[in-house]
Amino acid sequence: MSVNVGSVGTDAGLLAPAWAGTPVAAEVTDEAWLRAMLDVEVALARAQHAVGLTPAAVVETIASAADPERLDLAALSHAARAAANPVVALVTEFTKVVAAKDPAAAEYVHRGSTSQDILDSAAMRVSRRALDLIAGDLSRVAAALAALADTHRHTLVAGRTLAQHAVPTTFGLKAAGWLTLVLDALRRVRAVAAALPAQLGGAAGTLAAYHEYARLDGDAGLPVGGRPVGGLALMRPFAEALGLAEPVLPWHTVRTPVAELGAVLQLVTGALGKFALDVQTLSRTEIGEVAEPAAAGRGASSAMPQKRNPALATLIVSAARQVPAHALVLAQCLLAEDERPAGAWHAEWQPLREALRLAGGAAHTAVELAEGLVVHPRRMRANVDLTGGAIVAERLNVALAPALGKATAKKLLASASFEAADTGRPLAEVLSQRRELASRFTPAQLADLLDPARYTGAADALIDRALRAHGDAAGPDGARRPPAEEPANRGSAR
Amino acid sequence: MSVNVGSVGTDAGLLAPAWAGTPVAAEVTDEAWLRAMLDVEVALARAQHAVGLTPAAVVETIASAADPERLDLAALSHAARAAANPVVALVTEFTKVVAAKDPAAAEYVHRGSTSQDILDSAAMRVSRRALDLIAGDLSRVAAALAALADTHRHTLVAGRTLAQHAVPTTFGLKAAGWLTLVLDALRRVRAVAAALPAQLGGAAGTLAAYHEYARLDGDAGLPVGGRPVGGLALMRPFAEALGLAEPVLPWHTVRTPVAELGAVLQLVTGALGKFALDVQTLSRTEIGEVAEPAAAGRGASSAMPQKRNPALATLIVSAARQVPAHALVLAQCLLAEDERPAGAWHAEWQPLREALRLAGGAAHTAVELAEGLVVHPRRMRANVDLTGGAIVAERLNVALAPALGKATAKKLLASASFEAADTGRPLAEVLSQRRELASRFTPAQLADLLDPARYTGAADALIDRALRAHGDAAGPDGARRPPAEEPANRGSAR
Amino acid sequence: MSVNVGSVGTDAGLLAPAWAGTPVAAEVTDEAWLRAMLDVEVALARAQHAVGLTPAAVVETIASAADPERLDLAALSHAARAAANPVVALVTEFTKVVAAKDPAAAEYVHRGSTSQDILDSAAMRVSRRALDLIAGDLSRVAAALAALADTHRHTLVAGRTLAQHAVPTTFGLKAAGWLTLVLDALRRVRAVAAALPAQLGGAAGTLAAYHEYARLDGDAGLPVGGRPVGGLALMRPFAEALGLAEPVLPWHTVRTPVAELGAVLQLVTGALGKFALDVQTLSRTEIGEVAEPAAAGRGASSAMPQKRNPALATLIVSAARQVPAHALVLAQCLLAEDERPAGAWHAEWQPLREALRLAGGAAHTAVELAEGLVVHPRRMRANVDLTGGAIVAERLNVALAPALGKATAKKLLASASFEAADTGRPLAEVLSQRRELASRFTPAQLADLLDPARYTGAADALIDRALRAHGDAAGPDGARRPPAEEPANRGSAR
Amino acid sequence: MSVNVGSVGTDAGLLAPAWAGTPVAAEVTDEAWLRAMLDVEVALARAQHAVGLTPAAVVETIASAADPERLDLAALSHAARAAANPVVALVTEFTKVVAAKDPAAAEYVHRGSTSQDILDSAAMRVSRRALDLIAGDLSRVAAALAALADTHRHTLVAGRTLAQHAVPTTFGLKAAGWLTLVLDALRRVRAVAAALPAQLGGAAGTLAAYHEYARLDGDAGLPVGGRPVGGLALMRPFAEALGLAEPVLPWHTVRTPVAELGAVLQLVTGALGKFALDVQTLSRTEIGEVAEPAAAGRGASSAMPQKRNPALATLIVSAARQVPAHALVLAQCLLAEDERPAGAWHAEWQPLREALRLAGGAAHTAVELAEGLVVHPRRMRANVDLTGGAIVAERLNVALAPALGKATAKKLLASASFEAADTGRPLAEVLSQRRELASRFTPAQLADLLDPARYTGAADALIDRALRAHGDAAGPDGARRPPAEEPANRGSAR
Repeated sequence: MSVNVGSVGTDAGLLAPAWAGTPVAAEVTDEAWLRAMLDVEVALARAQHAVGLTPAAVVETIASAADPERLDLAALSHAARAAANPVVALVTEFTKVVAAKDPAAAEYVHRGSTSQDILDSAAMRVSRRALDLIAGDLSRVAAALAALADTHRHTLVAGRTLAQHAVPTTFGLKAAGWLTLVLDALRRVRAVAAALPAQLGGAAGTLAAYHEYARLDGDAGLPVGGRPVGGLALMRPFAEALGLAEPVLPWHTVRTPVAELGAVLQLVTGALGKFALDVQTLSRTEIGEVAEPAAAGRGASSAMPQKRNPALATLIVSAARQVPAHALVLAQCLLAEDERPAGAWHAEWQPLREALRLAGGAAHTAVELAEGLVVHPRRMRANVDLTGGAIVAERLNVALAPALGKATAKKLLASASFEAADTGRPLAEVLSQRRELASRFTPAQLADLLDPARYTGAADALIDRALRAHGDAAGPDGARRPPAEEPANRGSAR
Repeated sequence: MSVNVGSVGTDAGLLAPAWAGTPVAAEVTDEAWLRAMLDVEVALARAQHAVGLTPAAVVETIASAADPERLDLAALSHAARAAANPVVALVTEFTKVVAAKDPAAAEYVHRGSTSQDILDSAAMRVSRRALDLIAGDLSRVAAALAALADTHRHTLVAGRTLAQHAVPTTFGLKAAGWLTLVLDALRRVRAVAAALPAQLGGAAGTLAAYHEYARLDGDAGLPVGGRPVGGLALMRPFAEALGLAEPVLPWHTVRTPVAELGAVLQLVTGALGKFALDVQTLSRTEIGEVAEPAAAGRGASSAMPQKRNPALATLIVSAARQVPAHALVLAQCLLAEDERPAGAWHAEWQPLREALRLAGGAAHTAVELAEGLVVHPRRMRANVDLTGGAIVAERLNVALAPALGKATAKKLLASASFEAADTGRPLAEVLSQRRELASRFTPAQLADLLDPARYTGAADALIDRALRAHGDAAGPDGARRPPAEEPANRGSAR
Repeated sequence: MSVNVGSVGTDAGLLAPAWAGTPVAAEVTDEAWLRAMLDVEVALARAQHAVGLTPAAVVETIASAADPERLDLAALSHAARAAANPVVALVTEFTKVVAAKDPAAAEYVHRGSTSQDILDSAAMRVSRRALDLIAGDLSRVAAALAALADTHRHTLVAGRTLAQHAVPTTFGLKAAGWLTLVLDALRRVRAVAAALPAQLGGAAGTLAAYHEYARLDGDAGLPVGGRPVGGLALMRPFAEALGLAEPVLPWHTVRTPVAELGAVLQLVTGALGKFALDVQTLSRTEIGEVAEPAAAGRGASSAMPQKRNPALATLIVSAARQVPAHALVLAQCLLAEDERPAGAWHAEWQPLREALRLAGGAAHTAVELAEGLVVHPRRMRANVDLTGGAIVAERLNVALAPALGKATAKKLLASASFEAADTGRPLAEVLSQRRELASRFTPAQLADLLDPARYTGAADALIDRALRAHGDAAGPDGARRPPAEEPANRGSAR
Repeated sequence: MSVNVGSVGTDAGLLAPAWAGTPVAAEVTDEAWLRAMLDVEVALARAQHAVGLTPAAVVETIASAADPERLDLAALSHAARAAANPVVALVTEFTKVVAAKDPAAAEYVHRGSTSQDILDSAAMRVSRRALDLIAGDLSRVAAALAALADTHRHTLVAGRTLAQHAVPTTFGLKAAGWLTLVLDALRRVRAVAAALPAQLGGAAGTLAAYHEYARLDGDAGLPVGGRPVGGLALMRPFAEALGLAEPVLPWHTVRTPVAELGAVLQLVTGALGKFALDVQTLSRTEIGEVAEPAAAGRGASSAMPQKRNPALATLIVSAARQVPAHALVLAQCLLAEDERPAGAWHAEWQPLREALRLAGGAAHTAVELAEGLVVHPRRMRANVDLTGGAIVAERLNVALAPALGKATAKKLLASASFEAADTGRPLAEVLSQRRELASRFTPAQLADLLDPARYTGAADALIDRALRAHGDAAGPDGARRPPAEEPANRGSAR
């Protein structure tokens, strides 16, 4: 096997600063995937030993040979074109490595197996590691956002809808919203991670060749104990050896696990993307309410000396814009014909890898952003006051409604607000000249009504609700307990 | 309000036979959405009454006015362009209807509320109805597939991978795979449906205006009891009045519920789409192993008298090809800036509606397909035999491996299989002339090894596993119990 | 035929204010599509007459019967489920209508045809009308943007990158960028519209039945002239009767036209979406540089009296977020197996319709936005000055580079800019205290260097280039001449 | 700069056999992109020299330093996180390399430029190379398909619609359809490739810093000639130095070129995907009408000796399922706010790279598939005959229509076809017992009517049309002349 070396590049993430150099990146490289496939071959041998089929010495030989360094990654990748998947070539080459150690052991490599068992199980193992990293980072993000919510529960900020000031809110409640999204994502990440299943089905999902070898070895006098030995018996030890769940059925064309991975990864980047998008908005030059944590070179421009770009938020947003497209490809792969489809399966691998590292990179980046976010409460307050009181026009509407009727009050306030906006005069001043108000409220009452700090509704209590939800999720139970849900297709078999 | 009537068409589904005329279609029309918005306005009034704010007589007046027939749907829809959502115009017009009954009651319409509270709550109510229909149909599909799995547990069929015969499997195991996918989808549908939250937040998610009205009415002497009355107190009775869950926070820009609706709907059509795709393949003229249930006109062509097209499966597949794109738009709407985004929210409504009715139509269609599927076991068997034994070449490989080694055995069998394929001779015949086999197996042994019925591995036991999972999901507990998972952002508040 | 009437709603666009009530909406309703299908049946009869096959009187009978009012749209839509497309039922019902006028004429209805010929041709006819509307609106948008570019060629505005002030630019150049995008889209709309092909292929794309009828009628003595009459001869008159292009081949599974429709529609909404997104940003409360044209009720909130939301821009953005998903489905339909696929074709119809009306609605909306956009040059200038000169730090960098070296100069300016930002002092003041500058520039020179109006580079000349490109596209030639495939945005400059 | 080396993997394409080791892969690696960015820096220096600004010796120093081997790719990639793009770090490091050669020359590196000018121009250069490879491969695919169309113009094959036999067609016409799609794609590839523009705009698209340096150097006495020297003057020589087109405007947020790249790449994989999908279907075990070209190891399974999977087609289909998702992300990036967006631009890079190599890999793979496709005319004919004549039921319908009326004839034939299908008797035999036919046709006439070879309509003439279109595109003119925007598949027939 040899391959045009020019075509093999370095996967450094030059075009993907969202994940370049982050921990998840190392877990999903070609090398990591190759290692995972070898892990699966070893796990298969171990499981076959566990049910009495493969001698212990053979397992050890196979395990000791399972070193990705002994294989030519580029050659394997190119050779994968012949079978449309990398496992056929991998088995050939890996068998040679084992045979060099012990020709008899080589007979036990990939025994009874099929390409998809190896690749799917490897994909789940890789995904599991990535999800664990993501869950860890989401927990840190959640903790940082919870702290922000608590700290800033009374920090007034303009509530903005359709890009316009609406009514006041608090920065703490904004953070509580981000927190809630992150907890939503974290909950699903944990549930999906715990349920990722091993794949074991054999050529067409019947486990027939595993079964046949078991029968054969049993006939050959290996110690099989009293109970029936067959392909099915392999499932549990195989899954356990890989740290994965045992599926109800082989899922060669029951692709729920892959579709759910896509769905949860887009939930992760969507949740973080909302946070990042708000950071970008709030750090606009004209708004200036938050800033990213400073670091040497962070946010620099190649041209403009004064620039401090929201680089972390930009990385996260760039990831959030890509992951749904990958999730879509994974969801479409549910339409997998027959016992193994001719293309749908093969289209999953790259999108899954890229979605994992984009979500992992985004989560890693969000830790730094959330933990270091710089908040400018004075600027927030200044912005709240920018419209001279119009931001509480809704409150005045409520106050005037009993006397004037809601609709009349709204018309009056709209007219006054527009006059204030167009003339640049404070709303209070404009209102003080409208007799409908002057006759009803003293200047002190009007000033009180116009005080944005007195119009934050249930913000404080809502923050408490979000913090309680965080406490539940973040406590020792939240972190450790098996997810209450037991997602699709992966319950323990009985 | 008047509108160019030419632009208002009939939403009959002329271009969407996947859902035209199915039950879900009626639940998501413009009329249904309008009715749901009115239901939400009534639920708000009821909740405000429940916490002592709005007089009972007013609630009844509002409820009695909440008749979509009194509103001009086309005019409302056109007027929605001014505010970029239909609620502003709806409130104006609905208030007029109430005022015509009782001007004082009109003051209580939409009290303290914001467009998004109404539209989001209505969307969840509509979605809930659609998901309930879908869950009902998925249950019927699951039951039909379970019956097929059980009935055909010994019906031999060719396992096919990459469009080629692989090894034998059973039609029962194929059906068990479809069943497992449907159960996966059903489990998530139930979990998501149970968690769909009401939306109540007011202008920027602080509940401030609800709060302010509560304070005002409290001052005005309404019976508020001893406990603090505020916007937050409305949440539970409001959600209960709508049959929806109570959220932790207002979720104006915490869009997990919408993203999860997208994800679950594409799981539904993906699961059904796999089943339908297999039906299409198996009913190809050359394969002929299954047929759709016959019905007058079903599968007819406008040109060809002999045609019996797999029309039901085609409807399902057509839905499955569209829903992931809608789910993508919904997932992207997680990136919603500020307290209400200027476009991301507005982009959710049509994709959500279309995804609901495509999934609902697909589920409805799948009931008929699954319950009526015609199975041709003899044709299945004939196809298994088409390659003269090559379909069990894997088994021979296992049998020869101890003597020849796996690799040598595989080469021998590949060569024999290709010779058989190229010459059209049965594999058994070709093999009987290879001395490696002739010397090792008697003709009877060889015949036994070549019998596809003896090479179905654990198919039977796997079917049992899938049927047990179905029993769990379909039993009274499965149907009724609250989903074990409590999805994102919607736990009961404390 | 009867159908559960509850399932048939009104297609008023309640959830789609982006297109509700706009001209394009009327062109893509179920009714419009039904009418287009009848037009195609008539065009087929006319074409068959044109080649000497169908008597003129029969054509007139068919044409006079082709009235959508005579058909039950809801019943047809529901009946479409039996064949998975609406044409089979349509032909049955339409034939009855013709037969009621003249039983002999009924024999000529849909003669030799297949469902896909009718539906595809109708889809192209509907698309052609929609594209023509879109092209007209894009031309108006382009004219309005060109006027803005010209008017504001010297209106200084902050150039913003990654949400931060970068260097100055002019509002005219911003408008020129929007214009260029719109011209790119317009050029492709015209090219794609002109090339939309009629569909004529018969059951499997060979034109066999058309051919057979021609032979039959020829045998029957109809005047066929000297040249061979066959199915192929129908193509040109058929396409001409529909105002569509003649294809090289029947394109039942050569779906370029549909994929290109998707691509061009997302180009339209992408171009307009960029414009709208900028309007939203520039109209943020804190920025306030532009405002949407005022209109009664425009931008109103259901809660807040002071609100003037950027409603038009929001409608456009909401469309732009949806169309790419529809385009994706259309692009995927290129993978259409056999001579007619079982699902891929059927999945095109709804996405095509929705993409057409979203793009059409966006274009219609953009006319109003572009023609009425309110520009606030003073606010723009105030924002430029917000950072006390930091917006021209790049220029100072250039000026200092010869003396200090680029890198040292950049460091100095970064430090001074950050000091200015952190202390709130003007950059000029901070700089005047750094000896590197004080020693090199007089205060007057420094003031000149810090004048943002003197740092707009080639903005003026670039505007001229964009206006010239607009002149070319908008002139009588631009409108009429066949598009010269000078692809988007990349012609040689003049 | 150093980076955790564990995170840097090999980009061998282990999970992407569709492109692993193919020529396009080498053109889009991180290394290739880095090289392209350095090429752009050199082109900028050359252009500045061309307009009299940068001394020739400096240009040569810069050019000689522009060696990617001198830069640490992994460190650069990681450092890119600080600025959210790789150019800032690249400029820093590259400047050091130049300075080591000549400190004075280092002052001219990246002079007046901005990150996006470098990265966008590099992206277009990389894309241009990839498109040229793709165009070359599509030309070869087209030639091979044209040969198939010509060779098999009389090879009868079953036309299939909705997975069922419809009417006969010829394999030549099938190939002509594939050819037409490939020509559509090729035409657009050439048009888009020729128009890919260089990017030159400076920090906010005004060319201001380029301009300022020009003014400065001009003042410094460099030979600038009589005409005004400014940033704009750089555009043409810069574009020419890169072999790219000159744009009307800087297109930092006028993203038509990127959106059109996405659109054309999905057209390429869609066209090839249709061909590959048909190959998969036709090579199903039960159909067996075509086979992939044999090669050692091609189509092998890790388990089943007899397998010859359609591996090439599977690679192509796997690519075709992924590219539309990337194109969607690119299309959405049209919505780029301000003068440079905070995320939309950054989200383009990976999808563009992946789409380029998937399309390039698919095209490369399709050459082998098209040139080596094995066709089995006898099997095709046997399949045509499988239904005992039902495949020409449409023809009988035509023949009987004059006597019985179309509808009655259709009913009769449907009934006979179903009887034949259900009983397994030949249609001719069933029909011969129906008196409506027996009385009208002699057995010889009936046999003639039932001969599928006599019912291929205009297939032959249609093939000629496709071959003529190929001749136009493939001839010396076709290859060289600027594409004449005769858009895909819709030119006037000749």
